[in-house]
Amino acid sequence: MKSSNELALRQEKIRKLMIQSDIDAALITCNVNILYTCGQVLSGYCYLPVVGEPLYFVKRPSGLRGPQIHYIRKPEQIAELLKEKNIPFPETLMLEGDELSFTEYSRLTNIFPSARCVNGTPVIRDARSIKTDVEIELFRKAGAAHTRAYNQIPSIYQEGMDDRQFSIEIERIMRLEGCLGIFRVFGQSMEIFFGSVLTGSNAEAPSPYDFSLGGKGLSPALPGGLNGTKLEKGNTVMVDLGGNFNGYMCDMSRVYSIGKVCEEAYKAHQVCLEIQSEVIAMAKPGTVCETLYNKAIDIVTKAGFKDKFMGTKQQAKFVGHGIGLEINEAPVLAPRVKQELQPGMIFALEPKIVLPGVGPVGIENSWVISEHGIEKLTLCPEEIINLEMQ
Amino acid sequence: MKSSNELALRQEKIRKLMIQSDIDAALITCNVNILYTCGQVLSGYCYLPVVGEPLYFVKRPSGLRGPQIHYIRKPEQIAELLKEKNIPFPETLMLEGDELSFTEYSRLTNIFPSARCVNGTPVIRDARSIKTDVEIELFRKAGAAHTRAYNQIPSIYQEGMDDRQFSIEIERIMRLEGCLGIFRVFGQSMEIFFGSVLTGSNAEAPSPYDFSLGGKGLSPALPGGLNGTKLEKGNTVMVDLGGNFNGYMCDMSRVYSIGKVCEEAYKAHQVCLEIQSEVIAMAKPGTVCETLYNKAIDIVTKAGFKDKFMGTKQQAKFVGHGIGLEINEAPVLAPRVKQELQPGMIFALEPKIVLPGVGPVGIENSWVISEHGIEKLTLCPEEIINLEMQ
Repeated sequence: MKSSNELALRQEKIRKLMIQSDIDAALITCNVNILYTCGQVLSGYCYLPVVGEPLYFVKRPSGLRGPQIHYIRKPEQIAELLKEKNIPFPETLMLEGDELSFTEYSRLTNIFPSARCVNGTPVIRDARSIKTDVEIELFRKAGAAHTRAYNQIPSIYQEGMDDRQFSIEIERIMRLEGCLGIFRVFGQSMEIFFGSVLTGSNAEAPSPYDFSLGGKGLSPALPGGLNGTKLEKGNTVMVDLGGNFNGYMCDMSRVYSIGKVCEEAYKAHQVCLEIQSEVIAMAKPGTVCETLYNKAIDIVTKAGFKDKFMGTKQQAKFVGHGIGLEINEAPVLAPRVKQELQPGMIFALEPKIVLPGVGPVGIENSWVISEHGIEKLTLCPEEIINLEMQ
Repeated sequence: MKSSNELALRQEKIRKLMIQSDIDAALITCNVNILYTCGQVLSGYCYLPVVGEPLYFVKRPSGLRGPQIHYIRKPEQIAELLKEKNIPFPETLMLEGDELSFTEYSRLTNIFPSARCVNGTPVIRDARSIKTDVEIELFRKAGAAHTRAYNQIPSIYQEGMDDRQFSIEIERIMRLEGCLGIFRVFGQSMEIFFGSVLTGSNAEAPSPYDFSLGGKGLSPALPGGLNGTKLEKGNTVMVDLGGNFNGYMCDMSRVYSIGKVCEEAYKAHQVCLEIQSEVIAMAKPGTVCETLYNKAIDIVTKAGFKDKFMGTKQQAKFVGHGIGLEINEAPVLAPRVKQELQPGMIFALEPKIVLPGVGPVGIENSWVISEHGIEKLTLCPEEIINLEMQ
C-alpha cells in the first residue's frame, strides 16, 4: 500500500466536511470507506485526523508496508499506539454509524472514552458523492466495459430461453469482460445477485428490496429479480446488471423484445426516452434533485403512464440515484430532495414503465455532471431491440 | 406469507433461549433472521414475544396477507400497534446488536424507552446453529445440486484457460443447476463474489478476508480469490464456490490438476483426506470443537505440512465452520472453542494445504451431525482430478 495524491485528495474532501462539523478525527473501518480512503479493501482502520497524517491500523492482509501502517490484532491497540506517538485524542470522533454494527460502534467508542462520538456515515457519503478525476476515469472504463458486454446480448439469445438462462449467459459475458460480480449496496436490508433481468408479468411482482423494479425471484431466500419466466413472443425483457468492473458500480438497463410487441410498449418506451432527454437537458450544476424527479412525473403523467411508472403494484419513489463504490449513493433523484447537482457527481437515471402482461420498457444510463456539461458513460443503442431479428 | 409449523418450531427455539436469558421479546429485522423467522426475506420486523403470537410489521413487499401481518411505513408505528392491541411492552428487548447498524439499533431502542435492550444476535445465531429437519432436507437438496454442478467441472476445462475463465464457466454451471449466486456471510467486513478458485502461487496471497484461503483477487476493490493466473501444467487449482441453491450455504472444495503434479502435492492431499476421516470419526454429539481442530493440527504437524496448512504467508485459524443461511455460522472448529457438537448442527470441514509454486490441495465437504451418525452432503470424488485426462 502506498500513499498517493489521489488518496490525499479524497481524504482532504472528507476532512473539509469534518471541519465544517467540528469533528477532530475519523476512525474508518467499513469496506467501501476503507477502499475509498486507503485505495484497497483491508481489514483494519484508517485513523484520519483533521490535522496530521492519516494512520492505517491493519489486521489483514499481512505484508503491507508503509510509514503510516501499523499492524494490530484488536482495535484497542489504536489508543495505545496514538499515545506512543503523542497524538492527542480527539474531542469529537466520527464513526460510521449507519454502517457499523451497534456492537462494533460501541466497542470503538469505548476506546476513546473522553471523545464525543458522532455518526460519520453522512459525511463520508457526502465526500464520496463528488468524484475525483481519477474516479471519473475509472467510471469511464467501467462504462466502456459495460457497453461492450451489453452489445453482445442480442447474440446470446436463443428461442425457448427463460429469464434465468438468458441472465446466466449475460452474467457470463459480463464476467468475461471483467466484471467483478460483487454488487455493493448501501443499507443492510438491500441485497441482490448481479442485478436483475425481468420479463413479462414478473416485472410487476413487488419485492422487499428498494430497487427500481421488483421481481419475484427464484426463492423466498432472495425474493427479487428473475423467477424462471419464459421469454415469450410479444413480451419485453429488461436487463439491468451491475457494471462493477473496478469497484465503481456503473449502472445501465436495456430492453429487448421477443418478436414485435404491442404499440403501447413502443410508445411507453419513447416516453421514457423523452423523460431521459428532458431530464438530462436540465441536469446541470445547481439543479435541485426533486425538480428532475418532478419533470419525469410530469411527462409520464401527461403521457398517461403514471400508474405504471417505476412499477405497478409497488412503485419505486425515485427516478435516479448517485452511483459510486455503492449502487445507491447521493444524490437521489426523488421527491422532496432539495440537494443540488454538483460537478463530479455521477448518477444513474432510470425512467421505466411496466406494462402488465408485456414486461418492462424504459432506459437507464450512467451520467457524469461537470462544469462543461453532462457525459454519458453507457453507450449502447437505446431502442427496444428485437431479439428475433438478430 | 403463511404461518407454518416449521416457522413455529424455529421461533420456539429462539424463545427457549430468550427465556434462559430473561428476555421478554425480540425485534428482528436483518434479512437472514427475517428469512429464518418469517420464511422469506421482507423489509420489516418480526416482533417475537416469549408469550403470545409473533407479529410481522412489514414495509415491503406489498400484498402479503395474514392475521399477524401489519403494514407500516416506519418502525415507530410498532409501538402504536402494540398499544392498540393491549400487548404489554417488554422489560427486556432483544435486538440484533452484531448486525444492525448503530443508527438503526439506536432508533429501535428509542421506540421502547422503558425497555432494557440487549444484543440478540448470539441468541438467534445459537438457535440457527441447530437445524430443523426441514432445514436439513433443504441442505440435502443443496448438496445434491452442488454435487451435480461440480461433477461437470472436468468437462468444461480447456487448455490455456486462466483461473478467471475457468471460474466463469463453473459459475455458469452452478447457476444452471439452480445456484442463487448470492453469498451471505456474517460480519460486515466479509465479502466475496460466489467463492474462490485458486491456482499456483495466487493461493499463497494473503487477503483481508477471513476465509480459509486468500488470493490476490482481480482488483484492490475485491482483494480475494482468483487473479487471472494461467492454469499451468504441474499446478493444482482448487474450486470453492458457494452452494446457495435455496438460501442454505452448502460448502464444498475440490482440487484439480493440470497434468501430473509433484509427489508432494499428492502426499499433502492425502494428509488432508486423512484429517477429514480422522476428524469426522470423532465428530459426534458431545465432541468439543477445539479437539477437532487440535486433531487436524496433530496430523498435519506429524506429516510435516504445518507451515503450509490453511495458507502459508497468512494462515486461517480454523479447520471448519458451521453453515446455514450464512457461510460462517456456529460451531467454529478452531482453537479454544469449547462448544460441543449437537445433533442438527451442519458444518463444513476444510483441511487445506498450500504448496508454494504448485497451488492448494485438500478437501472440503458439508456434514450433518445427528444422533445416529454423521452424513456427508457433498458427494463428488475426492482425489485430485487431472483435467488433462478428461
